[in-house]
Amino acid sequence: MSYSFPDLARLVKPTSVVIVGASDRRDSIGGRAFYNLTEESDFEGALWLVNPGRSEVAGRPCARSVAVLPDVPDLAIIAIPAAGVLGALKDCAARGVAFAIVLSSGFGEMGEAGKGIEAEMRALAAATGMRIYGPNCPGLSNINDRLGFTFSPAFKLDLLKGPLGVATQGGGLGRTILQAMERGVGVGLWCSAGNEVDLEISDFIHHMAGASDIRVIVALIEGIRDGAKFVGAVRRAAEMGKPVVALKVGKSDYGIKATMSHTAAIAGSAEINSAAFRQLGVVEVDDVDELIDTAWLLARATPQALEKVAVYCSSGGTAALTADMVGSAGLVLAEFEPATTARLAQLLPPFAAFDNPVDTTAEVLADMTVIDRSLQAVADDANVGLILHPFPMEYGAATTQAAQSVVRVQAASSVPIVPIWISDRSGDGLSALIEAGMAPLRSVGKSVKAVARWCGYGNWLARRDPAWRPMILDQTAPDDTNLEVLGEVDAKALLAASGIHLLPFELADSRESARRIAERIGYPVVAKVVSAEIIHKSDAGGVLIGLADAQAVEGAWNAIQASVQAAAPDAHIDGILIEGMAPAGGVETLIGVHRDPVFGLVLTFGLGGIYVEVFKDVSRRILPLTKTDAREMIREVRCFAILDGARGRPKANVAALEALLLSVSDFVVAQQIEEMDLNPLWVGAEGQPVIPLDAVIVRRKETR
Amino acid sequence: MSYSFPDLARLVKPTSVVIVGASDRRDSIGGRAFYNLTEESDFEGALWLVNPGRSEVAGRPCARSVAVLPDVPDLAIIAIPAAGVLGALKDCAARGVAFAIVLSSGFGEMGEAGKGIEAEMRALAAATGMRIYGPNCPGLSNINDRLGFTFSPAFKLDLLKGPLGVATQGGGLGRTILQAMERGVGVGLWCSAGNEVDLEISDFIHHMAGASDIRVIVALIEGIRDGAKFVGAVRRAAEMGKPVVALKVGKSDYGIKATMSHTAAIAGSAEINSAAFRQLGVVEVDDVDELIDTAWLLARATPQALEKVAVYCSSGGTAALTADMVGSAGLVLAEFEPATTARLAQLLPPFAAFDNPVDTTAEVLADMTVIDRSLQAVADDANVGLILHPFPMEYGAATTQAAQSVVRVQAASSVPIVPIWISDRSGDGLSALIEAGMAPLRSVGKSVKAVARWCGYGNWLARRDPAWRPMILDQTAPDDTNLEVLGEVDAKALLAASGIHLLPFELADSRESARRIAERIGYPVVAKVVSAEIIHKSDAGGVLIGLADAQAVEGAWNAIQASVQAAAPDAHIDGILIEGMAPAGGVETLIGVHRDPVFGLVLTFGLGGIYVEVFKDVSRRILPLTKTDAREMIREVRCFAILDGARGRPKANVAALEALLLSVSDFVVAQQIEEMDLNPLWVGAEGQPVIPLDAVIVRRKETR
Repeated sequence: MSYSFPDLARLVKPTSVVIVGASDRRDSIGGRAFYNLTEESDFEGALWLVNPGRSEVAGRPCARSVAVLPDVPDLAIIAIPAAGVLGALKDCAARGVAFAIVLSSGFGEMGEAGKGIEAEMRALAAATGMRIYGPNCPGLSNINDRLGFTFSPAFKLDLLKGPLGVATQGGGLGRTILQAMERGVGVGLWCSAGNEVDLEISDFIHHMAGASDIRVIVALIEGIRDGAKFVGAVRRAAEMGKPVVALKVGKSDYGIKATMSHTAAIAGSAEINSAAFRQLGVVEVDDVDELIDTAWLLARATPQALEKVAVYCSSGGTAALTADMVGSAGLVLAEFEPATTARLAQLLPPFAAFDNPVDTTAEVLADMTVIDRSLQAVADDANVGLILHPFPMEYGAATTQAAQSVVRVQAASSVPIVPIWISDRSGDGLSALIEAGMAPLRSVGKSVKAVARWCGYGNWLARRDPAWRPMILDQTAPDDTNLEVLGEVDAKALLAASGIHLLPFELADSRESARRIAERIGYPVVAKVVSAEIIHKSDAGGVLIGLADAQAVEGAWNAIQASVQAAAPDAHIDGILIEGMAPAGGVETLIGVHRDPVFGLVLTFGLGGIYVEVFKDVSRRILPLTKTDAREMIREVRCFAILDGARGRPKANVAALEALLLSVSDFVVAQQIEEMDLNPLWVGAEGQPVIPLDAVIVRRKETR
Repeated sequence: MSYSFPDLARLVKPTSVVIVGASDRRDSIGGRAFYNLTEESDFEGALWLVNPGRSEVAGRPCARSVAVLPDVPDLAIIAIPAAGVLGALKDCAARGVAFAIVLSSGFGEMGEAGKGIEAEMRALAAATGMRIYGPNCPGLSNINDRLGFTFSPAFKLDLLKGPLGVATQGGGLGRTILQAMERGVGVGLWCSAGNEVDLEISDFIHHMAGASDIRVIVALIEGIRDGAKFVGAVRRAAEMGKPVVALKVGKSDYGIKATMSHTAAIAGSAEINSAAFRQLGVVEVDDVDELIDTAWLLARATPQALEKVAVYCSSGGTAALTADMVGSAGLVLAEFEPATTARLAQLLPPFAAFDNPVDTTAEVLADMTVIDRSLQAVADDANVGLILHPFPMEYGAATTQAAQSVVRVQAASSVPIVPIWISDRSGDGLSALIEAGMAPLRSVGKSVKAVARWCGYGNWLARRDPAWRPMILDQTAPDDTNLEVLGEVDAKALLAASGIHLLPFELADSRESARRIAERIGYPVVAKVVSAEIIHKSDAGGVLIGLADAQAVEGAWNAIQASVQAAAPDAHIDGILIEGMAPAGGVETLIGVHRDPVFGLVLTFGLGGIYVEVFKDVSRRILPLTKTDAREMIREVRCFAILDGARGRPKANVAALEALLLSVSDFVVAQQIEEMDLNPLWVGAEGQPVIPLDAVIVRRKETR
């Protein structure tokens, strides 16, 4: 099931357009759409107007219906009341129109009746091949080509072309992003398809991935309707070397509820979303300003792995605050080369700080040459990957000069200089930074967050495996009737058959066979009741460990039978599992596999025990795992310190644990596993093995 | 040691001033100070000028020295090169000048020589009673009285009077705060005493606490020089009902290092700082914009405990994002009264959201009455404590009307409406909100943070004990020679004598006495070696538990002697401690007490074990504890779920644990304890006791 995406060229840049519901009333949707295209756009193709009640609009001829147009338009813009929309769409489809943008509202957002009409629209698109954009949306703004298929009265102000492609669902926050043009953020294309009956955010991401004028894709997501399509789109962006920066609403219960009521999209699990985003190289942010700041930084420069940061400022307190936040965010301050420190010491006053963070002191603001040269010295340092340059205040000419210096030094350097204009007072310095396309950020904390994400993307680029292909691209969810549950014995047999190392085990059907099995395995052994009806074996008295000799095993047989009979008199007992014992010591961990409705099969790793449950200290990946995933997901959990030998513990056999994670991933793929728990998973010290002590598996029936 | 603070009335509003180094050169420090006072201030008192080389400055008479002035000024402003400053200060002190502001730089920030001169300044202040402000500072801006004792060329723009008092160390970020006037944030007084040779941030906080025109105090702190003084000042602010909002730089190693190089202040432990701030009701923030936003919110309205939030917006996506962040921050969305929802349903279009978060949809923007009434309905709801009102975009007249509606509804409501102007585009709506004093915030995330802190302050107000007095106000740190370490036996004897419940224990000096003691206590017992030279008893084989009978105890005597002799042949063994055993089950926790250099004795509580160490999951309080502290510090650790009966565990005896925390606090005060570890501290289930199983104490010698 590899996704095929539509070619949106004729939607984004059509050669011919019809406006259905065209009007010359500037306060109507149809009128605004008409004037946006005729007065505010550089549209040079054929424009037809349709309005059943008019023969002309603003001096142009107007047809009664799409059916009578002289030729077939690439794009129809539908701007009529809801009641007529489906009919108009059918007319368009009948003529062979390629794309329809439905600006009208009054559909799914109104309730069930509207949802019914949306289903008809979807069916129409599927049946005819005409792709539908909307309804209940502001339209599409192709700013780089200066084409507005939108009723937005703000389109005339959307003038700053640029490298960002913006894909949103709701229009309001999309508009916020476009208004970042005031800060010098140029946007090339904005798609906001509202109720998304057909075309959706993933289609736009895919289009932008292939668009030569777009360098960074910004996605504001309330819900992902089709996980496989989303994965296909962001993978395409990665192939094309274009970062996708995403804000996904729905991290808290309030957000999930509000999102569902707003767009009827399924919010999905925030934890799984975030894990999948990290894995797919989608840069996740928490706020709409962070979306803009991070995307712009990525548009300015592509990070390498492990970029180190310099802080340069004329205020010591501001430099200290910025360095403090750099540290709190887990970023690394560059250590300057000796030559850099020497150059700074020569240029700056003796009470300045020549190390990173650089505090030039305000004294240097009087001398342009010193500012230029000292900033240049920092930019020239081979250890510096990015310079944070906070401006704590607007101080007239001095600030303007400092800002001009940033612009000048940046022009000659490939190291991004990131200005932070903290003050609420604007001034010529701010304007200079904006005009130079530096889109000054607004707070130290938000800037550091943006830089951390920028560095994180560089890190992802360096470690990703381009061949990796998530299972969701090849696999659909089975229905429940197609699944079977394997208990401990069957699950372990399947694992063992697939080459996963387990303790020796065998099912005993009598006291006598229990003893013989134990002797074959070697003492001490463990005895566990096997019964499909008993889920919590220990609670039912069905597990005895450390059985050291034949007498103990025979006693255990009796004791387990008695306990289980008492706890669950009706349970059918298949027998008693006799199993070897893990060596003393070791750390208990767990592996789980389950299906996420959006991203498909997900593997969870964590340390076992009650503390870890309290701290929810697990790492997750969508399957299959790469070697890097296996390596990182072990190191991502905070409890890794325990595996790594904290407090004088022996170091765990992390290599074997990595190998097991990869084996489990292969096993899940090969065996069509739908769900799985290896808990506890015993991890020995270096030289010792890693062994699942218990196992439950759910798999597809048809695989046998 | 109760702190006495200086009365700063004659510093902040002097009746007479001398400028030493007065000049008419507008580009000099002395000239700027002169013009700020003569042209930009409403100073009506006597102004004298001193400059040894001038007989007049700008047409005013100028004296050669302070010694020859006709009368004694309240305040001297020193604006001469560093070399002459100490002499000038001596002249001032000799004349009986009350306050001197030293604008000049070139002292501690230059190195050791400068620090020496600063020490002389400090000594001069102590000897003469003349209080010194500075050096290396921009001066003092008393905006509410329109008095600028500052060289800052920006003073002429510092025009918006207001309820904030701002106390900073460095000048740069203080200037950032003042420039928030552009956003409608009014500042009454700014004190920024640079190198703080004498007057320091705590003195200004104390002054502002008593100043009738200041309602909220903003502190930007690089280091707290004197913890007791700081505590005294913020307690005074609390008594006067004035919140203190603080940004403390030095949360990461980079920040600590940069701060030390910038101000030579001791950064202190960020964890202890934060714990002490919470306890003292100081509202801590992470960034300079957060300082402004939070302070302004507190100036606008005083929160009650547990305020609930409403979100009101004309964009559904923005409402969802805001509600999402409200949830992620742990805040509570108000549940509307049925009447509110009914009013909204009547007013808004059918596809709007009438619940919290309210999405009016953009359609209502056409009708002022609907906006007014629907916002009013939310403000009238008795469950709503604050309304977040995000504006995702500037959309011309519609946005302006919505903003005017906010201003109108706010004028008639005591529920604060907090506008968030997310867009980078400004407009008349933004201006209207600024003019109305609402200081619109700039990002959803930062706004939610400000509201969370506002709610947190209300919570603190509701639960604080006004009589509580931190030990640091009465106690200085002892020197090390005055301390003695009590090992387990002596420590436990002291605890038992103070009424803290322990297991029965006795020191055995022979195998025979061990057996007799065990019989008195009752089996099973524990045996532990007692030796001042053996720190890690278990590692030396010095602990044996679960001794069930006389034979076991005698065997343990032999075994411990042998193990310890092997492990530490030279250690003197005082005997073997025989002790009762805690019942099975229970949870291991720990209590620690240590002295923080800034805030004095601090108590730490946490759950024991290696996981908790990895997660650093502890709570801390400066001593003594109140009942509320004891209650909250147990519930603050994330592992509280384990004490509270997670995963079917028995609930722990939390009441006994609270009582023990209070007993330990009393014990520390009564016994002059300097350091203490009760680890492990065994916490039984409800009905069972709470028992320290091991104890080490460091106390002052003189108390015996």
